[in-house]
Amino acid sequence: MRLSQAFQPTLKEVPAEAQIASHRLMLRAGLVRQSSSGIYTWLPAGLRVLRNIANIVRQEQDRIGGQEILMPTVQSAELWRRSGRYDAYGPEMLRIKDRQDREMLYGPTNEEMVTDLFGGTVKSYRELPKMLYHIQWKFRDEIRPRFGVMRGREFYMKDGYSFDLSYDDAVRSYYRIMLSYLKIFRRLGVQAVPMAADTGPIGGELSHEFLVLAPTGESEVFYDAGWDEIDWDSIGLDPQKEEDLQKLREIVKTTYSATDEKHDLSTWENVPEDRRRGGRGIEVGHIFYFGTKYTESMGVEVSGADGAPLHPHMGSYGIGVSRLVGAIIEASHDDAGIIWPEEVAPYRAALLNLRPGDALCDQLCESIYSRDPEGLLYDDRSDRAGVKFNDADLMGHPWQIIVGPRGAKAGMVELKHRATGERSELPLDEALAKLGLA
Amino acid sequence: MRLSQAFQPTLKEVPAEAQIASHRLMLRAGLVRQSSSGIYTWLPAGLRVLRNIANIVRQEQDRIGGQEILMPTVQSAELWRRSGRYDAYGPEMLRIKDRQDREMLYGPTNEEMVTDLFGGTVKSYRELPKMLYHIQWKFRDEIRPRFGVMRGREFYMKDGYSFDLSYDDAVRSYYRIMLSYLKIFRRLGVQAVPMAADTGPIGGELSHEFLVLAPTGESEVFYDAGWDEIDWDSIGLDPQKEEDLQKLREIVKTTYSATDEKHDLSTWENVPEDRRRGGRGIEVGHIFYFGTKYTESMGVEVSGADGAPLHPHMGSYGIGVSRLVGAIIEASHDDAGIIWPEEVAPYRAALLNLRPGDALCDQLCESIYSRDPEGLLYDDRSDRAGVKFNDADLMGHPWQIIVGPRGAKAGMVELKHRATGERSELPLDEALAKLGLA
Repeated sequence: MRLSQAFQPTLKEVPAEAQIASHRLMLRAGLVRQSSSGIYTWLPAGLRVLRNIANIVRQEQDRIGGQEILMPTVQSAELWRRSGRYDAYGPEMLRIKDRQDREMLYGPTNEEMVTDLFGGTVKSYRELPKMLYHIQWKFRDEIRPRFGVMRGREFYMKDGYSFDLSYDDAVRSYYRIMLSYLKIFRRLGVQAVPMAADTGPIGGELSHEFLVLAPTGESEVFYDAGWDEIDWDSIGLDPQKEEDLQKLREIVKTTYSATDEKHDLSTWENVPEDRRRGGRGIEVGHIFYFGTKYTESMGVEVSGADGAPLHPHMGSYGIGVSRLVGAIIEASHDDAGIIWPEEVAPYRAALLNLRPGDALCDQLCESIYSRDPEGLLYDDRSDRAGVKFNDADLMGHPWQIIVGPRGAKAGMVELKHRATGERSELPLDEALAKLGLA
Repeated sequence: MRLSQAFQPTLKEVPAEAQIASHRLMLRAGLVRQSSSGIYTWLPAGLRVLRNIANIVRQEQDRIGGQEILMPTVQSAELWRRSGRYDAYGPEMLRIKDRQDREMLYGPTNEEMVTDLFGGTVKSYRELPKMLYHIQWKFRDEIRPRFGVMRGREFYMKDGYSFDLSYDDAVRSYYRIMLSYLKIFRRLGVQAVPMAADTGPIGGELSHEFLVLAPTGESEVFYDAGWDEIDWDSIGLDPQKEEDLQKLREIVKTTYSATDEKHDLSTWENVPEDRRRGGRGIEVGHIFYFGTKYTESMGVEVSGADGAPLHPHMGSYGIGVSRLVGAIIEASHDDAGIIWPEEVAPYRAALLNLRPGDALCDQLCESIYSRDPEGLLYDDRSDRAGVKFNDADLMGHPWQIIVGPRGAKAGMVELKHRATGERSELPLDEALAKLGLA
């Protein structure tokens, strides 16, 4: 994309309403604009990040046998009456009356709807296990929306639901998904620690939140340094292998972590003092095992192997896709701007033409740009070099390819790595090879 | 995907509530399930079709300079008061009160929101033209939802908005998009004729609907046979060339087409009798030029080349993405089931193992399947061959690869082309080459 034509309005001023770095940077870099309180429009670069995150989540869900569906945003209140949650759910539920005066709502989560869908289509134990998920807009009518997309009202979330025949199978599903989540967050370039958590309005007996550590997080967290030290890639646990799921359970059991709601002082005291870590965290995922809570209350059964009907055991698994855009920035930025992890960046590199109008610079830039117009953000604007450097740092693409008149004459370009700040002058071919553009 | 594990519940019985073929077939083939009146859940195969359509629309919008954003589903009533449409819009608008008692609504369209976004970010004539679009869920509270996803309440739509400096530029944008739409519908495998149409609640002076001819269409249409005869691919009009846009205007001017609302008997009488075509059509797209209607009422200006402020000229351009799933089926099915056009099919081919458990059949099928597990639907179920043939025809993938024990012994498979019904027995290599799987 040519920046001269892109719809990416950057701001020089720090917006007054934004209290935290990610909110400020998302506004300044032209990723989102507020439409009304807690409700945002995603501009092209922001939408690219949102979609990159959703695609990583999708790939990893599919890899462990998840099947993607898409449930609607508007639900019937009747469904929630069947589970008993309609009255229990507080004012965060956006309640709606349609023109026929039927009670509807904008879904804050989908346990009821997916249980109803499952009950209407799956009849036999032979069809289990099943793992259904969708990535859809949700609404929670926060009393005080804040921190931009981190605590918005309309938000984008992946929620998945597992259906198993027994408690043991369901717990295996639970840990399989935990392992998959750990991989998702690594691919997203953030460290998210699973922590014992309350189950809240979802219910159930087993629950973990995934928290990204950041000083602006809303939860206080306590954990064993082991979580910082585990090298998941090198231990290479496989979610399809039962013994690896067992190893994960062992790690979870022996490596303390909890949010303040679940913090247990007596266990904490067993963690050696020099290994105690604490701080604040942003919740980016939450998983639950709640057994037959919904299948029983909503009367959903399948016929078992012996012919007798049984209520499938369920779990639900959420990842806050839009919130992650903010959380990633909270965990990865500096004074100059955003530092995007490779897999989520809107473009793989910014291409800076320091002297548009100079024949050599233009020619060199066009020849680089033509190699990947989809993956490069070409700053072809007539602005000063300083403006371009600042905007490139603000927007935070992993690499900057800098083309100036002196280098262009010699067939050289400068490469800047945004995360480390390292710069090197390289012959064009070498630079292209380094970025996979050769 | 292995059909034994897929979440694709097919129905043998014709669902009583479905009055038209596409609705019946979408339920029977396991593409959607109704969640509440006029509101549907998309199952995995249906979601694949929906996404294929959205991706084609996206590619073609990007090709003519469209920039994708994502506006939220929930809008503030205040925005619509500024344009004067809040009170004018009837009971089809789903009105919502949030917990603070603020009036909100579930967007049925986005002229106000995009005009407001544009006004907040674009200040100078130098930044025009702009074409912004999004693909997002909308809600229209139909009094009588019917025909499945064709006239649902929650529906998926691409709506695009053009901003130009003058009437002439805006009309060029209008025809550029008309040309792009004609290409989109060709890629989707349907013939959609642009027809002069009323502007309705959007307003404006120039408007065309795109209609797919089908006996179950809700609009009566009248058009010159020329629309059936134009070979768009061979005349190859280029939306970026002004003279080609002029040629399109000439075609539109000289080749009659209108819905009944705009039908003009005196012009119709000039169409030779043997070239008059009529029938019913399904509206799948609608484009509008409405000038400064929203920029004026909402007070949005940019500074012109002479420094004086001016109101940009706008148009809006919709494609009914979820409705198209139904419309394509209406236009492309037979008694046995759906006949998917190549580019929208959920899978490129069904792979039928007629004798699971037979070592040779299993081995041959697995070796074919492993070439493209994402693009093939492998019927590995233990059902009878007859069931598999019926389901494959019902689901309607463009090709069926049929593997039986006799052929497997000789290294032969049968290929069936769903649209023509042609079958041929081929050596494995030839069959794979034909499907691009070699």
